[in-house]
Amino acid sequence: MSTRIVITGGAGFLGAVLARRLLAASISLGGAPAEELGELVLVDLFAPPADLAGDPRVRVVTGDLTTVLAGLGPVDAIFHLAGVVSGAAEADFDLGMRTNLDGTRALLEYARGLAAAPVLVFSSSLAVFGSDPALGPVGDVDDTTLPRPQSSYGIQKFIGEQLVADYSRKGFVRGRSVRLMTVSVRPGKPNAAASSFLSGIIREPLAGQRAACPVPPGTPIALSSPRKTLDGLLRAGEVDEAEWGSRTAMNLPALTTTPQEMAAALDRVAGAGTSDLIDWTDDPAVGAIVGSWPARFHTLRAEKLGLRPEHTFDDIVRAYRDDLG
Amino acid sequence: MSTRIVITGGAGFLGAVLARRLLAASISLGGAPAEELGELVLVDLFAPPADLAGDPRVRVVTGDLTTVLAGLGPVDAIFHLAGVVSGAAEADFDLGMRTNLDGTRALLEYARGLAAAPVLVFSSSLAVFGSDPALGPVGDVDDTTLPRPQSSYGIQKFIGEQLVADYSRKGFVRGRSVRLMTVSVRPGKPNAAASSFLSGIIREPLAGQRAACPVPPGTPIALSSPRKTLDGLLRAGEVDEAEWGSRTAMNLPALTTTPQEMAAALDRVAGAGTSDLIDWTDDPAVGAIVGSWPARFHTLRAEKLGLRPEHTFDDIVRAYRDDLG
Repeated sequence: MSTRIVITGGAGFLGAVLARRLLAASISLGGAPAEELGELVLVDLFAPPADLAGDPRVRVVTGDLTTVLAGLGPVDAIFHLAGVVSGAAEADFDLGMRTNLDGTRALLEYARGLAAAPVLVFSSSLAVFGSDPALGPVGDVDDTTLPRPQSSYGIQKFIGEQLVADYSRKGFVRGRSVRLMTVSVRPGKPNAAASSFLSGIIREPLAGQRAACPVPPGTPIALSSPRKTLDGLLRAGEVDEAEWGSRTAMNLPALTTTPQEMAAALDRVAGAGTSDLIDWTDDPAVGAIVGSWPARFHTLRAEKLGLRPEHTFDDIVRAYRDDLG
Repeated sequence: MSTRIVITGGAGFLGAVLARRLLAASISLGGAPAEELGELVLVDLFAPPADLAGDPRVRVVTGDLTTVLAGLGPVDAIFHLAGVVSGAAEADFDLGMRTNLDGTRALLEYARGLAAAPVLVFSSSLAVFGSDPALGPVGDVDDTTLPRPQSSYGIQKFIGEQLVADYSRKGFVRGRSVRLMTVSVRPGKPNAAASSFLSGIIREPLAGQRAACPVPPGTPIALSSPRKTLDGLLRAGEVDEAEWGSRTAMNLPALTTTPQEMAAALDRVAGAGTSDLIDWTDDPAVGAIVGSWPARFHTLRAEKLGLRPEHTFDDIVRAYRDDLG
């Protein structure tokens, strides 16, 4: 027996690193013994990096989730990472609804049509939490905190969680929804996300380039490294239903830090003065968005599954630097 | 100026009593001064009662929400009560998704297409709360309790709340979602809902007929009279955004009682021995469902809007009896 896995959004940053992890070692799914990976299907709007596209076990499927799933055939597990990011879903409401809501429904219907219900790991987001204008800041978040999403992206992710929960209850899929934190340090270029600078203020100075921090240095921030984020996705796919527990979504662990502490960590890892390349240029618009996100997470449920945040931001900077080498 | 109002589900029990209330008096909508009702559009799969269909101000539109809305034209307010009930949504998953989810989306898109965003009151349900098998009973519920729906109906209502919140945030509608409690006493015949007996054990004995109570007499139950339920729907439509507050759904007040206390109230109002017509025939399947619902609600937010539960179940029995006379 060999395993067949689908990653939606498989050509994106997280999708690609997840794909490499899955190709590197056998994986246990839904409580079953570990098996060899037979085929990895990467579904995305664009092609994956060349190392993945060239692997004989990888099948590349390019196109929209609402149209490409019909011919996929049976699958043991799906990691559903595809989606329009927060800024785009806010700027184009219909695009967000089509991709994040209708795309997720199409995926769930595909899975429901299979003879055996696949494990489905759905990547939700801390963006389900938002600062309700009538109520003020979110405050500390734990496993029972009521999400009050304040963006179309957050709403669409929260709806996806509900669909995954009900399709699981009905036995159509073996779903687990995990809420990802802001991932830092992401490689590559800055993007339009309000959180983009949280990678940029490390990535750019490490490359000898200037980067702007648009929020006050002491702003509390909840982060997760790419590695810990992958740990969460893989652990969700690995455990059986009893160990997973509630069908309600699980918050992944977060490291609470500040841009000031991040800059200090950068100097400790990369040498004193590296953070001089950060321009502390306040942008109240970005500050309002980033400051409305919860920054302190108490993730007992994730801890029971052995998931922990990074100990220090120094570890995150070091891991990023080492991955580049 | 006269007001134009749509009620979806306008031919059902709650829709019809709401229609009669709206036809009987001018109404204030979204904080504006009270105005005369010009036209009341009752949208449903079937025709409303004759008194409503015969009112010159009433327009009857029969058909599915996904098809009949295009020609409706501008409207000042929508009371969205239409939906497939819990038992039916559980038995026919696709029907529930189509009616409760796609129907609500179609309504929101219709409203979004209007030149002026209408007030939209969405009737959600206490069914968004459910006893999570991994976590046990819900316990007391307040305005910050995280819903973990355990039925397709509850999931679809909770998703509807999220859509109403985001369409409101975007300015497409002026939405308010209210979670209705189990309504008792409903007139008419028993139906397939697990909660049907909570009307039956009063309605049938008052008509000299026997009725079964399938749960232990001491089971705690959260109820609302039809009158208090209407109060909640109308108040949600009446206030402006500032007074309404958070776009997250609001729990309506509930009277916590037990079948035993209900029987005692029946005897006090209708005469000693009336409740002898109740057969206390335990049905563990129904008991498991009804016992999983939360029974104690702390509804501070609703109270701030002047909404209160009935003081005693005696009042509810009396009001039901008087309405029949």
